[in-house]
Amino acid sequence: MDIAALRAAHPDHWMRAAAIRTLTLDAVHAANSGHSGMPMGMADVATVLFSKHLKFHAAAPDWPDRDRFVLSAGHGSMLLYSLLYLTGTPEMTLDQIKNFRQWGAITAGHPEYGHAPGVEATGGPLGQGIAMSVGFAMAEEIQRARFGRKLVDHHTYVIAGDGCLMEGVSQEAITLAGRHQLGKLIVFWDNNNITIDGTVELSDRTDQITRFASAGWHVQEIDGHDPVEIDAAIAAAKNSPQPSMIACKTHIGLGHAAQDTSKAHGALTDAGQLQAAKDAYGWTTGPFEIPDDIKSWWEEVGARGVAEHEAWKARLADHSDRRQAEFARIYAREVPKSLAGRVRALKKQISEEAPKVATRKSSEMTLEVINPIMPETVGGSADLTGSNNTRTGDLGMFDVDNRKGRYIYYGIREHAMAAAMNGMALHGGVRPYGGTFFVFTDYARPAMRMASLMEIPTVFVMTHDSIGVGEDGPTHQPVEHLAICRATPNTLTFRPCDTVETAEAWELALGAQTTPSVLALTRQGLPTLRTEHKTKNLVAQGAYVLAEAEGKRQAILLATGSEVSVAMAARDLLQADGIGTRVVSMPCWELFEQQDERYRKRVLPGGAVRVGIEAGSRLGWDRWLCGERGREAKSGFVGMSSFGASAPAETLFEKFGITAEAVAEKVKSLL
Amino acid sequence: MDIAALRAAHPDHWMRAAAIRTLTLDAVHAANSGHSGMPMGMADVATVLFSKHLKFHAAAPDWPDRDRFVLSAGHGSMLLYSLLYLTGTPEMTLDQIKNFRQWGAITAGHPEYGHAPGVEATGGPLGQGIAMSVGFAMAEEIQRARFGRKLVDHHTYVIAGDGCLMEGVSQEAITLAGRHQLGKLIVFWDNNNITIDGTVELSDRTDQITRFASAGWHVQEIDGHDPVEIDAAIAAAKNSPQPSMIACKTHIGLGHAAQDTSKAHGALTDAGQLQAAKDAYGWTTGPFEIPDDIKSWWEEVGARGVAEHEAWKARLADHSDRRQAEFARIYAREVPKSLAGRVRALKKQISEEAPKVATRKSSEMTLEVINPIMPETVGGSADLTGSNNTRTGDLGMFDVDNRKGRYIYYGIREHAMAAAMNGMALHGGVRPYGGTFFVFTDYARPAMRMASLMEIPTVFVMTHDSIGVGEDGPTHQPVEHLAICRATPNTLTFRPCDTVETAEAWELALGAQTTPSVLALTRQGLPTLRTEHKTKNLVAQGAYVLAEAEGKRQAILLATGSEVSVAMAARDLLQADGIGTRVVSMPCWELFEQQDERYRKRVLPGGAVRVGIEAGSRLGWDRWLCGERGREAKSGFVGMSSFGASAPAETLFEKFGITAEAVAEKVKSLL
Repeated sequence: MDIAALRAAHPDHWMRAAAIRTLTLDAVHAANSGHSGMPMGMADVATVLFSKHLKFHAAAPDWPDRDRFVLSAGHGSMLLYSLLYLTGTPEMTLDQIKNFRQWGAITAGHPEYGHAPGVEATGGPLGQGIAMSVGFAMAEEIQRARFGRKLVDHHTYVIAGDGCLMEGVSQEAITLAGRHQLGKLIVFWDNNNITIDGTVELSDRTDQITRFASAGWHVQEIDGHDPVEIDAAIAAAKNSPQPSMIACKTHIGLGHAAQDTSKAHGALTDAGQLQAAKDAYGWTTGPFEIPDDIKSWWEEVGARGVAEHEAWKARLADHSDRRQAEFARIYAREVPKSLAGRVRALKKQISEEAPKVATRKSSEMTLEVINPIMPETVGGSADLTGSNNTRTGDLGMFDVDNRKGRYIYYGIREHAMAAAMNGMALHGGVRPYGGTFFVFTDYARPAMRMASLMEIPTVFVMTHDSIGVGEDGPTHQPVEHLAICRATPNTLTFRPCDTVETAEAWELALGAQTTPSVLALTRQGLPTLRTEHKTKNLVAQGAYVLAEAEGKRQAILLATGSEVSVAMAARDLLQADGIGTRVVSMPCWELFEQQDERYRKRVLPGGAVRVGIEAGSRLGWDRWLCGERGREAKSGFVGMSSFGASAPAETLFEKFGITAEAVAEKVKSLL
Repeated sequence: MDIAALRAAHPDHWMRAAAIRTLTLDAVHAANSGHSGMPMGMADVATVLFSKHLKFHAAAPDWPDRDRFVLSAGHGSMLLYSLLYLTGTPEMTLDQIKNFRQWGAITAGHPEYGHAPGVEATGGPLGQGIAMSVGFAMAEEIQRARFGRKLVDHHTYVIAGDGCLMEGVSQEAITLAGRHQLGKLIVFWDNNNITIDGTVELSDRTDQITRFASAGWHVQEIDGHDPVEIDAAIAAAKNSPQPSMIACKTHIGLGHAAQDTSKAHGALTDAGQLQAAKDAYGWTTGPFEIPDDIKSWWEEVGARGVAEHEAWKARLADHSDRRQAEFARIYAREVPKSLAGRVRALKKQISEEAPKVATRKSSEMTLEVINPIMPETVGGSADLTGSNNTRTGDLGMFDVDNRKGRYIYYGIREHAMAAAMNGMALHGGVRPYGGTFFVFTDYARPAMRMASLMEIPTVFVMTHDSIGVGEDGPTHQPVEHLAICRATPNTLTFRPCDTVETAEAWELALGAQTTPSVLALTRQGLPTLRTEHKTKNLVAQGAYVLAEAEGKRQAILLATGSEVSVAMAARDLLQADGIGTRVVSMPCWELFEQQDERYRKRVLPGGAVRVGIEAGSRLGWDRWLCGERGREAKSGFVGMSSFGASAPAETLFEKFGITAEAVAEKVKSLL
């Protein structure tokens, strides 16, 4: 690559982009770790995008109508941090850049949402960014349809690398975006032909242009170092009614001795080579030093959106107080005041009617109450609408000609669904929920983890939550998935036992502002157990006494979901034998852990044997069975220790020994 | 659809295919559940494939050189069961068909590998079959290169539906197959335009022909009900040096009132409609009754391969005894006799030299011993070769012009890698292992579960197994992943503490014939703790006493992997304070659980406080901390209760409190 020619062709642009390259080199050198090559390769694209197209105001990174910039190739975090620092984004000081990848700094190795203003989404796990961006673009369409272009009218820009495009989730994402003609989504592909193991050809020879075209995208190929081509391509992409992919031919580690090699993917830390690269750039200031004229230019870029932002604020102020309050409420992720009362009314009605229904149906009954009063909910399913019971009558189908639609047919794309929901939650103004079978948590897992890590309240409606699935067999019967969700930090795992608990779980999931929720719901019908109406949300305590022992308390049965009714039947058997038995429903372990020790001891006192009942793995149960300090109770567990099987559900519960009789036997064996 | 015209055009073919359709209708009717539409739609393709192209001998379903037939659209299991029954495959009796989806039958709702002969792979989780088939085809190439076409020369055929093609893993699979020009892989796409939620257009408008072409595939479009077109397309596909996709335009539920609707995807159980469909087919016999001439014809199809099979056996017999024994050994998944001695020698050498190395490097050192004596190993990595340390010098790169290569650059495709490895293990003759970062277990998860469910010994080399990852931050630091693996039935989760344990773990992983293994390995260097050489494989017991208490035993420290050295350092601190402390290394919980109670009690006796130490989630630990009966010990845990952070590894262990000092403090607080 002829660096001198690049410099000569666009000298001003060159030095502005070089600021990104040198900050990257310096920060990686100081950290002695990181990824230098990508920011050096994509600096030109980023410079043109930020200075000529991106609608943003650096001082106001939360402006709802800003363009979103998602770094899907998150390892290139110094590209983003450099841009945030250069444009004057709050908190992104030079000290933060100097402390790249150090404890307490907001400049984590990969961009972490919530750490630094201006980081729209966490990056790093490849493909997540491009998949989340589909959710960003959908949220924008839905919000624009609801509030009009005067309040909502922005683009979502993404930088994706070869890794993002090789990950399967990218295919789910681009076909979903293509289906919905998300014209305001613009993806830059950093086409540098290098992966960690070597050249891309080592593992891939896909014609990406044809591939994106096959999904209904507008595609362009440009020289990713030519500012004129970049500018023109972005302009064309903005004009296209289709989602756009701009393939940017770039040189990874541009101007460094390691340019165009896989070595450039990682940390370029050699001091001599660093200096040589700076010399080639014509960069003469010391480490982390940006010449004033260049820094000023970048700060002007950061202030470029101020007028537009002010005009937007004025337009918002033109709306009625009520409209403004509603806009503020949904961006603050607050539930409407009427929610609590509506949920209480549903609970009361259900307690009285005591229907026998599957909790997936209970969830639908709750959504019928929620959706009409929360216009920000956006539902969906990965092609299991009728099974997940996720679509209520009022939602309407989101489509090219119905952007007001609040129900998304995600297709057989669990992973992209979860990621897109994350993108919507990050965008703000909408509250996404979506369904699949609980066992397919597996497919959605990388995005579900991201929701927990990013602290966003995505709601995963996971039905068919045990061997209760029946004939579809072990491929469709979750066994380990409750443990998976419970092992994941910052996740609320709800497994309600009836309609009342399901309604309470939904209220908590929507009330959560920084925690995703998983609702594990049954396929099979369950009796209503909460037949005595309580105003209080008992699920909020995580676990509670559902039925007290009669006479001396000798046993405590702990159960969740469909097994709570098994516990209740076992209690009948035991009480008939004079064995005083308490039943504790534990719909949400995480919330129970958050209660004070006094409450936990009141629910699970010592002095009685304990049996846990759950049609899943035992892993994790011993915490509640032994007592938290490990010396409190003799205990046992009735559940699954293998995969399930294909047969009618009742047969399976019988054959795998998850029955009231087996529970009663277990208790007696421990007494 | 004009059924009469179809019947008239190819009357013999029609009735043979109708046998599949009617068996499907009858079995689903009897089960009152299942999926009727797909077998009815794809019966013509299957009839032509099995009768004119598929190399197989129904009586010998384990013939190593048979063509493989993978039903990726596994919900259409009755297609496969019908074919197996009609062609006279052992065990697939009419009774089994009549007991479709019932307890104890081999005709599970979705085809389960190991239940019925002739089921090459478990189906159901969409996209897995097409991804596994890439591994089948790779294994065939590798085996052909090793043993020659006289012993190995067969095709892999797949039926995939719209769901398979929408799942992201299909993109990873087809681009991997395209990259390697796996010409003997032939995929039929059941292009019926229907998903569960409605027509495909509801969620997808991808041009699949262009998409596959962009990945380097040979593509054809045919009428999936015309036997002449089907025959010609298969012939053309076999002639192509590229992998082939045949888009078969079909009618789901052909001839039934529900034809071409999403209703046909599921169970068509209405008796009247069933009869009407049979009438349309010209089918006059009763339920489950196949006219003799049609059954005989199908049995001839099943015997079509007998001569070819005999000839193959003769060719095998022409080989030297040693060659035949080797062929038999690898298909029996037996390790060579020399393995144990070589591993012992490595252990001895390491015990003496006591190097400080990361266990990912220990794994490489072990592979340097294993790979030269096990020519059936096939290694690989999802673009992290240098980090996973999975490539040894002798392997050679698998490529279009080097089919003998035993190392596969899977690209950034963790999911397809795991699925392809499963396919290789199912094909037989090779022993696949592959690496990625442990946190990206998330991406590979659906395929990893399939390995456990199918009972195949795939080996997952998962490096960078904790916050020891350091600066890359929480997106790259597993916390919950040990719990995920341990919660999954039939999975060996190894977390070795040094090179000796790593070598022992590898020996066990290769010795396992029906269980996949996960090796969780460190990024960071660890001291050798097993400095006293023992011939015996101690990891085989799952947990063992690594260091005994001096004086009265007051504490037991339980740890895995990198935290065993933390435990050893804590023991030093405690012993210095006169607190007798035992250290138990627990590299494999599952194997420890399999030991008899006496051994477990000997390792974890009562009467001492217990502290578990692991840089991961506590979930599951209480089982060992409380004592298995829940009343044995006061206990505590030192580990992670949140996601990690971005900083140097040593800083993270310090900040998250996973240090010898913290462990010693914890012990003292419990005494």
